[in-house]
Amino acid sequence: MSPAPSDSWRPWMQRALQLANLGCGRTSPNPMVGCVVLDAEGRLVGEGYHSQAGEAHAEVGALRQAGERARGGTAVVTLEPCCHHGRTPPCSDALLAAGIRRVVVAMADPDPQVAGGGIAQLRSAGVEVIEGVAAEEARALNRAFLHRIAHRRPFGILKWAMGVDGRTALPNGASQWISGPEARNWVHALRARCDAVVVGGGTVRADDPLLTSRGRRHSEPLRVVLSRSLALPERARLWDTAQAPTLVAHGYEAPARRRFQLDQRGIERLVLEACEPWALMQELARRGCNQVLWECGAELATAALRQSCVQEVAAVIAPKVMGGTLARTPVGDLGFTGMQQVPAWQTTCPQQLGDDLLWQLHAPELDRRWTSPPLPAQRCPSP
Amino acid sequence: MSPAPSDSWRPWMQRALQLANLGCGRTSPNPMVGCVVLDAEGRLVGEGYHSQAGEAHAEVGALRQAGERARGGTAVVTLEPCCHHGRTPPCSDALLAAGIRRVVVAMADPDPQVAGGGIAQLRSAGVEVIEGVAAEEARALNRAFLHRIAHRRPFGILKWAMGVDGRTALPNGASQWISGPEARNWVHALRARCDAVVVGGGTVRADDPLLTSRGRRHSEPLRVVLSRSLALPERARLWDTAQAPTLVAHGYEAPARRRFQLDQRGIERLVLEACEPWALMQELARRGCNQVLWECGAELATAALRQSCVQEVAAVIAPKVMGGTLARTPVGDLGFTGMQQVPAWQTTCPQQLGDDLLWQLHAPELDRRWTSPPLPAQRCPSP
Repeated sequence: MSPAPSDSWRPWMQRALQLANLGCGRTSPNPMVGCVVLDAEGRLVGEGYHSQAGEAHAEVGALRQAGERARGGTAVVTLEPCCHHGRTPPCSDALLAAGIRRVVVAMADPDPQVAGGGIAQLRSAGVEVIEGVAAEEARALNRAFLHRIAHRRPFGILKWAMGVDGRTALPNGASQWISGPEARNWVHALRARCDAVVVGGGTVRADDPLLTSRGRRHSEPLRVVLSRSLALPERARLWDTAQAPTLVAHGYEAPARRRFQLDQRGIERLVLEACEPWALMQELARRGCNQVLWECGAELATAALRQSCVQEVAAVIAPKVMGGTLARTPVGDLGFTGMQQVPAWQTTCPQQLGDDLLWQLHAPELDRRWTSPPLPAQRCPSP
Repeated sequence: MSPAPSDSWRPWMQRALQLANLGCGRTSPNPMVGCVVLDAEGRLVGEGYHSQAGEAHAEVGALRQAGERARGGTAVVTLEPCCHHGRTPPCSDALLAAGIRRVVVAMADPDPQVAGGGIAQLRSAGVEVIEGVAAEEARALNRAFLHRIAHRRPFGILKWAMGVDGRTALPNGASQWISGPEARNWVHALRARCDAVVVGGGTVRADDPLLTSRGRRHSEPLRVVLSRSLALPERARLWDTAQAPTLVAHGYEAPARRRFQLDQRGIERLVLEACEPWALMQELARRGCNQVLWECGAELATAALRQSCVQEVAAVIAPKVMGGTLARTPVGDLGFTGMQQVPAWQTTCPQQLGDDLLWQLHAPELDRRWTSPPLPAQRCPSP
């Protein structure tokens, strides 16, 4: 069998995807996009990627590099070129102005402001458009952006570290460190790929975490504390906002005196419609977060799972039998009463991180099956 | 570098190890042993393995196959030939009688009745003996036998199945099935490699398990219930001893009325010095068990770990977030108060069993580090 015509573009699209990934963690609320430009003879003459929201789009950088050599050539882009004036002018216009004759795209942009309009504009101007090249890889790359567009909430990753017996702390609360340095490095790198990292007040009180990428990302992701009572320690590493921004989110019921204390310390506050994960995720989506990392204790993790705020679990499993009848565990009651109700998550191949194991699981059918077992009443309904 | 002289025997020794493994699960209290016999020109003329306690040793089977062709030849054996009259005559005598001129062994037999005596006898009769070929593989093959000889207790494997959040049951106790059919098949095959399978009374009451290899082994491993109170259900699949033998072990404190009930049902009973894992393991070693599988709940698993009755953990991890604040977990309190006290177990590469993950961990330095952290007083001292 000869390859499908679009298959010949695959290697270039894979290069464009590599370029797109260079922007990982810094493009939100935009997607990651990469572009290569070939001249009329098919020679590589320009490469570009979207490096940060507000900066030039991938196509513009690649066209700039190509200059006059783009005329009569091909642009290979990981996402449909935009056709609207945002913070930067439309890329479809730039492609036409550069004299590009053929555009190869991996997938249409689901953003309602684009949604096929870019492709239509190019086609009506006589440009050949080839769609769907390496579409699956492109969707995987931008799964967080796509999730936010589809659900108006960021893509949520719930991470925990536990012993092989499922413990996230010893009976006396000690938990530093369960995992080894390789796994902790991996978590720092994971934070660099996220727009915000969320904990509850209990984690601040118990662990006094720093929650940064240790400089892997500039600027650092937003550190968020979701706290009903605002009973937070006076001193905490999260209050040093020179290293990274911190936001304390709470509901209307939070005591005025404690709100005032936070304001005096110069900590940003956010009053939520309800002090629940779903309300926080809606706010974070409004703030342009595509991907959010939950690094919280069992109580908040349980609420986040039940409110469909977790699309991926990253379980770091240490080769340690920690023990503990009353020791902390990753997740509290989810309301299942029979094993047939418990959905199987989609697994990836486990990775060895030093002595530890990393197992990443994807939510079954992106939330649909998750909400199907009959759950007892929640404090706040999932919107 | 030219290979060491012993390296040329490695392929034959690996064949002998393959043969030895054919007896897996049926040789206890003996080790697994395999043997190949080569004629004077180095051609394969006989193969044998120890298939079952009381049956011919590996050397005898291989020599029988070789017949007269063994004269002037070489025997490659995974373990030092025995030199004592047990249920069968000494293999060293048989090798000499067959005219074998060279014996290649992987390792000496640590059994005090042999312990180098077989090798010495062969050498003094003028036979060339080459030792230590593939010694590590041979030790790994017979790790259970070697553990029993060294510690007078069987090698213990603690197996559990849990969700990725460390739960071994839902809050209401439901646990069938956490793992998928591939993992459950693997457990049946694991039972076939063990001489006994141990549970506590709680598991009999909660799960009514069958605990057989589902015919993979004939006869089935001994099913053992360790119960302090003997408060066992009147009907249970374990009481059907037509399928597999069952033994109920208890201490002196067990109520006489319940002992009587078991006797009337025809269930074998064993009165232990103390109703604790260490006492049971000593008894099972006396009965010739090399390898014992713990398939018990958290309470008994904790006691078995604390009393150094577990040399390997086999954790089956399902891609399911089960949840549950009060749900069952694999292990109870081990007495650790700081993470630096918790030893790291030696890991093997995780295996995928269908959708589930199998992670096997070996006890740190075979029990030595395990007992080093200061543990609170136990009900019974480890002997």
